[in-house]
Amino acid sequence: MTDTSKAAVKKSAPKKAAAVTGRRYRGVSEEARQAERRQRFIEAGLSVFGSRGYHSSTVRSICAEAGLTERYFYESFSNSEDLLCVVYDYTNQRIRERILATLMDAPREPSAIAYATLEAFLTIMRDDPRMAQILFVEVLGVSERVDAKYRASVENFAQLMQQMIAPLLDAETLPAPLQPDILSVAMLGSVITVVSRWMIGGFREPIATLAENLHVVLVALLRHLIILADAPDSSASK
Amino acid sequence: MTDTSKAAVKKSAPKKAAAVTGRRYRGVSEEARQAERRQRFIEAGLSVFGSRGYHSSTVRSICAEAGLTERYFYESFSNSEDLLCVVYDYTNQRIRERILATLMDAPREPSAIAYATLEAFLTIMRDDPRMAQILFVEVLGVSERVDAKYRASVENFAQLMQQMIAPLLDAETLPAPLQPDILSVAMLGSVITVVSRWMIGGFREPIATLAENLHVVLVALLRHLIILADAPDSSASK
Repeated sequence: MTDTSKAAVKKSAPKKAAAVTGRRYRGVSEEARQAERRQRFIEAGLSVFGSRGYHSSTVRSICAEAGLTERYFYESFSNSEDLLCVVYDYTNQRIRERILATLMDAPREPSAIAYATLEAFLTIMRDDPRMAQILFVEVLGVSERVDAKYRASVENFAQLMQQMIAPLLDAETLPAPLQPDILSVAMLGSVITVVSRWMIGGFREPIATLAENLHVVLVALLRHLIILADAPDSSASK
Repeated sequence: MTDTSKAAVKKSAPKKAAAVTGRRYRGVSEEARQAERRQRFIEAGLSVFGSRGYHSSTVRSICAEAGLTERYFYESFSNSEDLLCVVYDYTNQRIRERILATLMDAPREPSAIAYATLEAFLTIMRDDPRMAQILFVEVLGVSERVDAKYRASVENFAQLMQQMIAPLLDAETLPAPLQPDILSVAMLGSVITVVSRWMIGGFREPIATLAENLHVVLVALLRHLIILADAPDSSASK
């Protein structure tokens, strides 16, 4: 909670003495209750932005979904875009966690890790299309701030991908001018575009079809890079 | 020109008899002059949307750039979004033409065709960053209509890619569940995402670096698919 929003709360609700930080109500600290309200707005944002669309959503509709008043909204967020940024972070975080949890059980082999990751990601998207909608549609073209977040997210997932397949995408074994960062972004781009199209088409194809096609793209690159690393004298791509 | 916009012109400029279709001015038909004005607005749209951004652009600023009055704008376009759609089509068309022109001179060999296509596309983007800006940033998140155009464009370019590498991405030689349409969209997605990132980073890396990295992704897939087609009993991606 920022100082500004604290001040806003005090100003807009001078009579609610219990709302002042540090006071307790039914044994729960105000801080804990505020965190709980914030979380309810995040879930409401995921729901409303992810189904109705960001541009068609109002703070009022978010509040209705959360079952909380606008005063509480502005306690945690300065506006709708602010909430969108938080919902986006939250979505990315949940995806990261799900993928990492999957990897705990996957065999320690690059191809199997890649398949498990793709399968996990596809399952999350199909099971919660609101997340897919936020990820692939709603965050695009909103503002420079959201654009910057989107780009940072692409870099983060590309780095995650790079770490997973690190032994093969190692810069030292790659013949110039191949770069692990560019190759990782290329792989991520293929995933983003195929999954986005899958979502827009209503998730018609089975998860296994998508996973196999995306997996073959990744495996093909990994195998090719192994061949290139073994024969560094050959030209990179010809 | 639609009937509606014709009516709008007549209504808003009743005194300009020469503007009525079919009349001539200095030997040029009104239709030809209107087409020329429309083209000036498209160039102005490319310039203004591509540098200032769609959301920061007004019809007024487009008109100033075109050196034409708003009356002429509404003669050809119903609003700013309408012009954006036309500018987007125009950009896509110019890219298609440049790529096809490049392919006329490229050797008839899939790997060389792919490299020439990538190089041509990267050169167009760097030489006219306004086009890259329209393609990768400005058309996103504007409206359902523009979103639909963007998706149609992805499908079109994926089909173009599929045609170019047709012999290898042939559905009949691909072991199930691999699909040429999904693989083409994956390849296009890797190009879109890498080039978009390159643009946002100010086109720092040389064209050859980008082309080689994207080419290796494509070549790797093609080689892998050849191996799979030769050994159809093996699992597609494992």
